[in-house]
Amino acid sequence: MDFDYSPRTREMIDRLDGFMRTHVLPANQAFHETAARGEYPLAILEPLKAKAYAEGLWNLFLPDLEETDPGTRLSNLEYAPLAEIMGRVPWSSEVFNCSAPDTGNMEILKRFATPEQKQKWLDPLLRGEIRSVVGLTEPDTASSDLTNLTTTIRRDGDHYVINGRKWFSTGARHPNAKICLLFGVSDPSPDAPRHRRHSFVIVPLDAPGVEVVRDVPIMHHHAPEGHCEVVYRNVRVPVENLLGKEGDGFLLAQERLGPGRIHHCMRTIGQCELALELMCDRALQRSTFGKTLAERSNIQDWIAQSRFEIDQARLLVLRTAWKMDREGTKAARVDVSAIKVVAARLQTNVVDRAMQVFGAAGITPDTPLSYLWSWGRALRYIDGPDEVHLMVIAREELAKAKAATGRNAAHFVRPH
Amino acid sequence: MDFDYSPRTREMIDRLDGFMRTHVLPANQAFHETAARGEYPLAILEPLKAKAYAEGLWNLFLPDLEETDPGTRLSNLEYAPLAEIMGRVPWSSEVFNCSAPDTGNMEILKRFATPEQKQKWLDPLLRGEIRSVVGLTEPDTASSDLTNLTTTIRRDGDHYVINGRKWFSTGARHPNAKICLLFGVSDPSPDAPRHRRHSFVIVPLDAPGVEVVRDVPIMHHHAPEGHCEVVYRNVRVPVENLLGKEGDGFLLAQERLGPGRIHHCMRTIGQCELALELMCDRALQRSTFGKTLAERSNIQDWIAQSRFEIDQARLLVLRTAWKMDREGTKAARVDVSAIKVVAARLQTNVVDRAMQVFGAAGITPDTPLSYLWSWGRALRYIDGPDEVHLMVIAREELAKAKAATGRNAAHFVRPH
Amino acid sequence: MDFDYSPRTREMIDRLDGFMRTHVLPANQAFHETAARGEYPLAILEPLKAKAYAEGLWNLFLPDLEETDPGTRLSNLEYAPLAEIMGRVPWSSEVFNCSAPDTGNMEILKRFATPEQKQKWLDPLLRGEIRSVVGLTEPDTASSDLTNLTTTIRRDGDHYVINGRKWFSTGARHPNAKICLLFGVSDPSPDAPRHRRHSFVIVPLDAPGVEVVRDVPIMHHHAPEGHCEVVYRNVRVPVENLLGKEGDGFLLAQERLGPGRIHHCMRTIGQCELALELMCDRALQRSTFGKTLAERSNIQDWIAQSRFEIDQARLLVLRTAWKMDREGTKAARVDVSAIKVVAARLQTNVVDRAMQVFGAAGITPDTPLSYLWSWGRALRYIDGPDEVHLMVIAREELAKAKAATGRNAAHFVRPH
Amino acid sequence: MDFDYSPRTREMIDRLDGFMRTHVLPANQAFHETAARGEYPLAILEPLKAKAYAEGLWNLFLPDLEETDPGTRLSNLEYAPLAEIMGRVPWSSEVFNCSAPDTGNMEILKRFATPEQKQKWLDPLLRGEIRSVVGLTEPDTASSDLTNLTTTIRRDGDHYVINGRKWFSTGARHPNAKICLLFGVSDPSPDAPRHRRHSFVIVPLDAPGVEVVRDVPIMHHHAPEGHCEVVYRNVRVPVENLLGKEGDGFLLAQERLGPGRIHHCMRTIGQCELALELMCDRALQRSTFGKTLAERSNIQDWIAQSRFEIDQARLLVLRTAWKMDREGTKAARVDVSAIKVVAARLQTNVVDRAMQVFGAAGITPDTPLSYLWSWGRALRYIDGPDEVHLMVIAREELAKAKAATGRNAAHFVRPH
Repeated sequence: MDFDYSPRTREMIDRLDGFMRTHVLPANQAFHETAARGEYPLAILEPLKAKAYAEGLWNLFLPDLEETDPGTRLSNLEYAPLAEIMGRVPWSSEVFNCSAPDTGNMEILKRFATPEQKQKWLDPLLRGEIRSVVGLTEPDTASSDLTNLTTTIRRDGDHYVINGRKWFSTGARHPNAKICLLFGVSDPSPDAPRHRRHSFVIVPLDAPGVEVVRDVPIMHHHAPEGHCEVVYRNVRVPVENLLGKEGDGFLLAQERLGPGRIHHCMRTIGQCELALELMCDRALQRSTFGKTLAERSNIQDWIAQSRFEIDQARLLVLRTAWKMDREGTKAARVDVSAIKVVAARLQTNVVDRAMQVFGAAGITPDTPLSYLWSWGRALRYIDGPDEVHLMVIAREELAKAKAATGRNAAHFVRPH
Repeated sequence: MDFDYSPRTREMIDRLDGFMRTHVLPANQAFHETAARGEYPLAILEPLKAKAYAEGLWNLFLPDLEETDPGTRLSNLEYAPLAEIMGRVPWSSEVFNCSAPDTGNMEILKRFATPEQKQKWLDPLLRGEIRSVVGLTEPDTASSDLTNLTTTIRRDGDHYVINGRKWFSTGARHPNAKICLLFGVSDPSPDAPRHRRHSFVIVPLDAPGVEVVRDVPIMHHHAPEGHCEVVYRNVRVPVENLLGKEGDGFLLAQERLGPGRIHHCMRTIGQCELALELMCDRALQRSTFGKTLAERSNIQDWIAQSRFEIDQARLLVLRTAWKMDREGTKAARVDVSAIKVVAARLQTNVVDRAMQVFGAAGITPDTPLSYLWSWGRALRYIDGPDEVHLMVIAREELAKAKAATGRNAAHFVRPH
Repeated sequence: MDFDYSPRTREMIDRLDGFMRTHVLPANQAFHETAARGEYPLAILEPLKAKAYAEGLWNLFLPDLEETDPGTRLSNLEYAPLAEIMGRVPWSSEVFNCSAPDTGNMEILKRFATPEQKQKWLDPLLRGEIRSVVGLTEPDTASSDLTNLTTTIRRDGDHYVINGRKWFSTGARHPNAKICLLFGVSDPSPDAPRHRRHSFVIVPLDAPGVEVVRDVPIMHHHAPEGHCEVVYRNVRVPVENLLGKEGDGFLLAQERLGPGRIHHCMRTIGQCELALELMCDRALQRSTFGKTLAERSNIQDWIAQSRFEIDQARLLVLRTAWKMDREGTKAARVDVSAIKVVAARLQTNVVDRAMQVFGAAGITPDTPLSYLWSWGRALRYIDGPDEVHLMVIAREELAKAKAATGRNAAHFVRPH
Repeated sequence: MDFDYSPRTREMIDRLDGFMRTHVLPANQAFHETAARGEYPLAILEPLKAKAYAEGLWNLFLPDLEETDPGTRLSNLEYAPLAEIMGRVPWSSEVFNCSAPDTGNMEILKRFATPEQKQKWLDPLLRGEIRSVVGLTEPDTASSDLTNLTTTIRRDGDHYVINGRKWFSTGARHPNAKICLLFGVSDPSPDAPRHRRHSFVIVPLDAPGVEVVRDVPIMHHHAPEGHCEVVYRNVRVPVENLLGKEGDGFLLAQERLGPGRIHHCMRTIGQCELALELMCDRALQRSTFGKTLAERSNIQDWIAQSRFEIDQARLLVLRTAWKMDREGTKAARVDVSAIKVVAARLQTNVVDRAMQVFGAAGITPDTPLSYLWSWGRALRYIDGPDEVHLMVIAREELAKAKAATGRNAAHFVRPH
């Protein structure tokens, strides 16, 4: 057992941290001003991307790459502290080609796409030339149970015809977004097996019948790239655009979610560290009724609790990454559910305290806090609501208990 | 002791509720669409105001009015359930001339304005012809301690010259907004008594040097009327615009806050009822993994807890209103601090549960929930942060304990 | 609506409070010392009972009494603040003949006993000459669902034969305990209606086959009167001892529980007030690191929160009592469930804070706090676990929602 | 970074677990029955101790031992999972000579005792022949600030004369208890440096003037060995019994607390695992209203939360142990404060949920839960109250923030 980062990890931390301070943070104000004008800040991003690519800070999230693919080839465990650092400036992941949903999309394209699909879509994604969207959640369906989803993917000759409405299609307004990995019902027959009814198809966003009807703000926050509502009306794509096999939809969705979820959690840790730092800074500066806030024991309690809540959550995230590296995504499924719940709650709790220390300023967009809170709140739903993850964890625990019935009988004291 | 509303109150509840269902709610969608276009929905409001005025649903919050003033003349206790009803549609208070900060401004103008000031500004406010702003909080000051505020009000001949920066000046972008009741330092001498250094002056918003520099969204939510940042640069107002006497600022601010705070709390109760109703509606409709959410015991626990948390908070608010009616605002100061903390926490807790039951939809603007949550979060700061109110309550409790030292000695069991 | 106690209530408060200070509290240390020796402190109680009886502070909980019955004839609303006062010294209820389970037993005997049963058992109970027990909960059954209970009451000629094991039979070790109102299966046929299978019989505690096998401490606290485990082996009682009709068991149990539960809640309020007073007293006395605890803002927060949590809970209890007086126990069933959950949680929360302020002393028996905490924890189970009450409340709320489907459609904003 | 136990640790876990199942758990019922009779179960313990000693499961907590000392020589990190296992049966630590306060006493005797003191007291302690007590906390002092303590250690010729009253002197009623390491004021002069005023002396418990006046139960639970109140009246010990130098008291107390605290935390983890296992077992067995508790989503939520709360706390404890091994106790001071708060809260939270799932049985002594809860509650005070540890953590965090002022300026977005 060893709690130290490896020398390679420490070196990567230093390099990434240096890049952030030298290149990214100085552009932060301009990024937000541009985005506030409704313009996607590509002019800021592209030179940063080129620099990151050149310095080998690229595709940091992807452990296994072909020899010809660009990227740094880190394990999940090595990636974790880097995702933390990127998390502190939410838009910065794109600089290093580590943005959701591209990350998850690249992962399943890597594992399940045909050589033609890879050449057409994965390669430009790996090079950061295009961006992509995933189409899962639907506004009129309880989407936390994926088998509920109703968008249809109907075979018609050598095409699929798609009809449906998706929302929270993140990135659909990004100027570089080219495709959506769309999830829908390919086998509507009532006696089809529940987990084999859905498939994924790759839908070019410029296909006729695809309409981005609106951007849906999350807790009133409009992301520059959009969390969009997208309508598909008789959209036709060639059958070659099927990802994997017909009926593989549920399987691929599950594969996709493991790493996606842990990346969110890693960024959360970094964002909470930032919130805690800001909370301390502010508490040291502000005085009311003759004392700094830092001298008040209730504020001190918030700081201390934030400290050990973050530390605990980070350790759980790191252990999960380590397990994914050693035993695979599937073996860490319950671990991922746990960190997913832990991280989202952590984020709202820690950031909420920080906002309160900032007073009125905390609920304005002048600090990063109101966005970080909103995002944390959304994380209690994104990639599965807390309640589903809690159910997964409980079932595992109950199964263990069932398998060991009677193990603890001697701990009871029988009265006479 | 009697927990029933009086017949008059019950009649008023029915009338207001009827008005809401017949006239206000049908206009809700149009109101939001207009506001979303960046236009203040006066065209929707003015006819509704005229109708409410005609029906005697007017100035419901103001217990004491001159014979010639328009209004319904209700006690705080009678007003409470009506404010609840208005709270359910946040923009509706304006229909009945019951919007903050006009309410508080009318109250202190009524008590402290000169006859000339009343004629010029109070009368049109009471008739709903103009709207007003209050200038307290400053971006660069820990404003929860009012004595910290730094905007200057300097006497110069028969004028005051104002310099400073305020924010969260709610309503400064309302098309009818005409004046700001501005709080600032009128006596900067270091040996002036701490609570006599500040004054209120009435500043016309069209005075040269007044600049509304931006609207500051609260948790990313832009109010149609604006929570504005306003800069005052060498703004000159005649000395007749002084409200009360020089040095009365702190006193007037305190007077102003009691009723203002309880109005927020009353509306919170109604908003939480709405959130609970929506949570139940949704839980009955949605199914995941073969069960409605309403059948799950964790969701049931949220519903039950929301029920009794709201009921308890309402009773505390009503008792505070009753005490204000009988003993005055000052006597109920600590009670108001208590409901202020209770209501803001209630609002974020209940609405948070409702959002979670709504899933992804809960964090969009399609339901009222994301706004109600954001507003609830802001209430933990508006009119004083929770921490200041908690301190007020604790000091009162400790003072009682000090005065009764030794009262409980016989409750201890002395060992031998 | 009126939040003042009536003049009669205020007078009764003064009288009871005076009695407590003059007679009961001076005996507190002796009571505990006697009980600690394993002796029931009858010698302390009997003279106090006689005095209370003489002063008309007797059977305060019983609203309706025959003309010849001794007692003060108060409504539930009038009783509430008196139960609070008694709650502060847990053993004092017996002084005023207001102890559970006698209170609930007297209530159902009053309503359902035959004239002969009343003469034999109710009259001496009303006069405080004997005490009684109730036999509900069973160690080997999930007793929160009463229909699970398995003790058998088998008709055999003109006797019932009882076999079973009960626990938490409070008071079975009291020297004056004479009878148990025992709940069991009188109709074991599998097709008997679920809620008509059980009956109550009155079992003299000296009947052959009744064995008090042990006292079961609650969180390690041994009550002087015992929360006993009692075994019934072929116990024979005459059929005249049946209470109500065969199959009435469930009905009578429900009737019994309403007032019993609210009495617990009333006492909780008083106990929490005491805990808050002690917390303040201690915080004023103790200093660490150069400051009194009362000056620390985290302790202040605990005090303030305790203050408004108690106030809110009290109002909910009082409103429930008022409703029971006006509409009957049954109409207030859901209200009682709410206060039951609220009070038990309040008690553990407030007392926990007080214990922490007392430091090591807080977890010793030298202060009343460790007992009050333990009792509060037990209240989360006594008379039904929180989870059952939460389910009752949620179902009511969901039923209301179901009956009003569509009521809130206009609150949503439809996107285009 | 590696989250696996070492092979040696895994082997030790297996051996200890096997010993527990084979030898300790079968004796559990008899231990409690003997203790319940007021008799210390030496007859059960001594053979188990001999067996553990023979098997080399001895002094597991002590990393560094002389060649001639008996013991297993494990690091803190290796000890952690073993302490977990022992924690599951609280009395079992003594079997392996790993009981507090002996553990802490052996540690400071090892570091600070003279050769004569070691031979006389440390050697028999290491062999498990005698037991020891530590005298810190005083009933009439706010002992969380050690500099407050008032017991006097006055030099008189070649003796020290001790006067004072201590409580929570754990183990003073153990039949093998021979000495107390007593902390008191050796330099009462008002101008003595605050942290050099106190010393430790070794007091034989049979010295004239030492009186164990009572055992103080914790939350009504009487430990078989006693948490005793001990009075010292003119107790004379030779000056050779001074531990370290005069004025070293505070220093030694600090040294003593680090490992002692982490041992508590390690045991807590094991106790919480046991509580979670019992909660699952019970939830699978019990049915109410037609469903097992395991099928209810609120119970599932409790199980899931307990799972990840325990996992997080364990990781933090292990990392702290690892840091103590690498950098020493002092370097891990703030880490120890964190786990101390985390573990005590964890224990009350997890066990509370388990108790609730057990219903009435949960609050009886028939399950281990009521004891585990009580002990967890005491841990919020033992070795320093949560509030002191929170202050320590916050100060460290604020100091880091102070040293890095301005680091985060670029994260703010300046409005224009």
